[in-house]
Amino acid sequence: MSISNQNLKFYNSLTSSKEIFKPINKSRIGMYVCGPTVYNTVHLGNCRTFISFDLIYRYLKHIGYDIRYVRNITDVGHLEENSDDDKILKRAKIENLEPMEVVQKYSNEFHEIMEKFSLVKPSIEPTASGHIPEQIEMIEEIISNGHAYEKNGSVYFDLNSFSNDFDYGKLSKRNLDDVINESRKLENVSDKKNPQDFALWKKAADKHIMKWNSPWSLGFPGWHLECSAMSRKYLGEKFDIHGGGIDLKFPHHDCEIAQCESTNKKNPANYWLHTNMLTLNGKKMSKSTNNFILPQEIFDGNNKFFEKSFSPNIVKFFMYQAHYRSQLDISNDALLASEKGFKKIEKAFFLIDDLKVSKSCDFNCDSWIDKCYQNLNDDINTPKLIANIFEIVKFIFEVKNDKMKIDKESKTKIKNSLSVFVEEILGLNFTKKSSVDLDVDLIELVKEIRNIERDKKNYELSDLIRDRLNSLGINIEDNK
Amino acid sequence: MSISNQNLKFYNSLTSSKEIFKPINKSRIGMYVCGPTVYNTVHLGNCRTFISFDLIYRYLKHIGYDIRYVRNITDVGHLEENSDDDKILKRAKIENLEPMEVVQKYSNEFHEIMEKFSLVKPSIEPTASGHIPEQIEMIEEIISNGHAYEKNGSVYFDLNSFSNDFDYGKLSKRNLDDVINESRKLENVSDKKNPQDFALWKKAADKHIMKWNSPWSLGFPGWHLECSAMSRKYLGEKFDIHGGGIDLKFPHHDCEIAQCESTNKKNPANYWLHTNMLTLNGKKMSKSTNNFILPQEIFDGNNKFFEKSFSPNIVKFFMYQAHYRSQLDISNDALLASEKGFKKIEKAFFLIDDLKVSKSCDFNCDSWIDKCYQNLNDDINTPKLIANIFEIVKFIFEVKNDKMKIDKESKTKIKNSLSVFVEEILGLNFTKKSSVDLDVDLIELVKEIRNIERDKKNYELSDLIRDRLNSLGINIEDNK
Repeated sequence: MSISNQNLKFYNSLTSSKEIFKPINKSRIGMYVCGPTVYNTVHLGNCRTFISFDLIYRYLKHIGYDIRYVRNITDVGHLEENSDDDKILKRAKIENLEPMEVVQKYSNEFHEIMEKFSLVKPSIEPTASGHIPEQIEMIEEIISNGHAYEKNGSVYFDLNSFSNDFDYGKLSKRNLDDVINESRKLENVSDKKNPQDFALWKKAADKHIMKWNSPWSLGFPGWHLECSAMSRKYLGEKFDIHGGGIDLKFPHHDCEIAQCESTNKKNPANYWLHTNMLTLNGKKMSKSTNNFILPQEIFDGNNKFFEKSFSPNIVKFFMYQAHYRSQLDISNDALLASEKGFKKIEKAFFLIDDLKVSKSCDFNCDSWIDKCYQNLNDDINTPKLIANIFEIVKFIFEVKNDKMKIDKESKTKIKNSLSVFVEEILGLNFTKKSSVDLDVDLIELVKEIRNIERDKKNYELSDLIRDRLNSLGINIEDNK
Repeated sequence: MSISNQNLKFYNSLTSSKEIFKPINKSRIGMYVCGPTVYNTVHLGNCRTFISFDLIYRYLKHIGYDIRYVRNITDVGHLEENSDDDKILKRAKIENLEPMEVVQKYSNEFHEIMEKFSLVKPSIEPTASGHIPEQIEMIEEIISNGHAYEKNGSVYFDLNSFSNDFDYGKLSKRNLDDVINESRKLENVSDKKNPQDFALWKKAADKHIMKWNSPWSLGFPGWHLECSAMSRKYLGEKFDIHGGGIDLKFPHHDCEIAQCESTNKKNPANYWLHTNMLTLNGKKMSKSTNNFILPQEIFDGNNKFFEKSFSPNIVKFFMYQAHYRSQLDISNDALLASEKGFKKIEKAFFLIDDLKVSKSCDFNCDSWIDKCYQNLNDDINTPKLIANIFEIVKFIFEVKNDKMKIDKESKTKIKNSLSVFVEEILGLNFTKKSSVDLDVDLIELVKEIRNIERDKKNYELSDLIRDRLNSLGINIEDNK
């Protein structure tokens, strides 16, 4: 697929409109996505964000771009709301671990979940704690540009001074007055000139373990800063795409823009993309109300919400059934429907090879392929793409039932395109019944046969079955 | 297993003798192992080191210790011999990637290989580039203690001055004169007072991409420094075990000791453990002579050295057949023998459950278990432990063949101990017949049952079997 054939549009949160995607360099794209704070097992809503950007990465790659994909790991400086407690330090206290042990543990877990979802690994996965000098440097630049001030060892971004030179709140469409009105006391404000100012560097309390030397104090960087420092280091002052969950739009991303405008005089990214929320049974996921589920609890069926387990593949397919910018509700029925739907696609895919070939074809493959691309190009419209896929699935079953005709060329085209759209771009796996599942099913069958025949007092057969299963290492006990 | 029952000895490179292991804290151990430089696919010889320390970690854990296991990733500052070329930068040029993309790529690959070998993940896996401030701080301390000097933006460790206060070369049993005589020009020496001095900080050339601000220049840390700075940060000034490949003893580990003595006035670790080399077909592995093999090439059988593929499990078992401090040669015959040996152990393990129980036992289990622990306690003597394991395997087969007797209690004891020694401590996996084989066996069994019952005109059952197999996608045809 050549890049020139594509008219890819993204909905840009910056302009609140769909725009034709024009990369800065002809064929190399820079994309930065805000990654997880590794103080806890990754949230399913976060997974939706990373799955959506995996799809965007895969599609950009598919249409011919080379991409440097940077997704950070926040391992320091992310404070609890209304407190000075670092999320990682708090977890370290609970788990009786050194903070970096917490970071390692949850980074490993995060990577395992991403792997279960078959997500492509980012090109670079920088950590906040690994980029302290870069963050200190950026603070020094912001201070020297007059948009930050030091107070008692901490440094704050000065929104009043910044607003004299730039507009703050471009992304969330807030102006400074809005922000001042809204300003909730996210941090200890005593040192701030104004409550809406945000921390670039915090002096660490004595009990604080994660701290570094700086020109201002032994302390740690503010959360918003790491993304500005690391995106600049690895993607330059101006890159193509910046992504993240919609909850990061404000204040995190508006603060990022302010930091970058203050140092580099420019908004760091041309396209700001945001993924929407995931709710559970119609309500916000929240630990405090117990309306909450972890990815692994879905995969192993160990939860009170769903009647059975669902594979990462099905959860991912389920997520694609809504557009990434739409809110999406996960529920037992929705997952069951997704599973049924995906199995139908899978069945159709494996049917294609065996379809009887005619001289003509009742389906216009080329126009179908065009439609699929149009929907992907339209801000990665996966629900529409999936509708397209079901069209072709329907056609495949109709050919199978002799209601429609397919020719040889279309057969190849359909097989290849389905593989491209479903496997390569959506990153879903078509699998024949796995051998592990088959084992379980076969063992169940043999046990069932044995029970039937034992009830009929066919002990000869039931003993034979017991011995043969034993010799395969499968122990069978008679529930007399 | 309680800690007090153990008399674990390690061969300490520092004293060149086996010593009883006495941890600093009663039940918490700190262990630091030098990890890979991620500029290339991990070397099989390095794998041997990480496998050996995995075993040490597992054994310490088994006998009741809590361990903080730190294994670093070198992603900056490791220079090619006789040059100023950073290994990662050189690879980045070859692969046309940003250095941190090279780091990410080979870190991912390294983790995948470690996972294939089923190694336990370290508690903390710090990177050199992520600890620049800590390294700068350490250099400042060394300078202020008079054991380092700055010249043209670079900082060098002053071995002459250091040797007035401390002995250099404790580990490799060199004295300063030896080192001066041996001193090969590992780096551009023009700025050094003496050729044996080593770099703590190097001023970066303009072309150098990986560089940071420091009090001396825009530059990067010397390779030896990262381990001293990171072990101190995560394990303190004095910890229990420092490990690595034998090639790191000098100069890397002797330099680490010098750096730590200069700053903390103490040798950082009580026990210095070194793993020996792995040769291939009797010769040193080397890319230049093409006598070289990668782990993955063994696993997938895609190499010119071995007649078949060998699983990570077998390669690991093979490695344990030599003591970690002995040189070990990998060859086709050695791997075949290991595979045969491990399969025998595996077979015996799965036989135990079915052994006929007698009232007495011809094998003294307790004294056997004691011997196993004695061998593990004797500097983790795996060849002797494996010999013990083959003793019990022999006994199991003899019981199976009615030549020996086993009682119920011993049966349980042997099964549990084998699992502990082989699975838990050596970290090897016993696997039953693979599920693919199992499928085939189960299908055969079901077909056989069906044929038996059809011959008896039990058509009800034979039809049920046919339908159920069909629904599992297994077609069955009646050979009437």
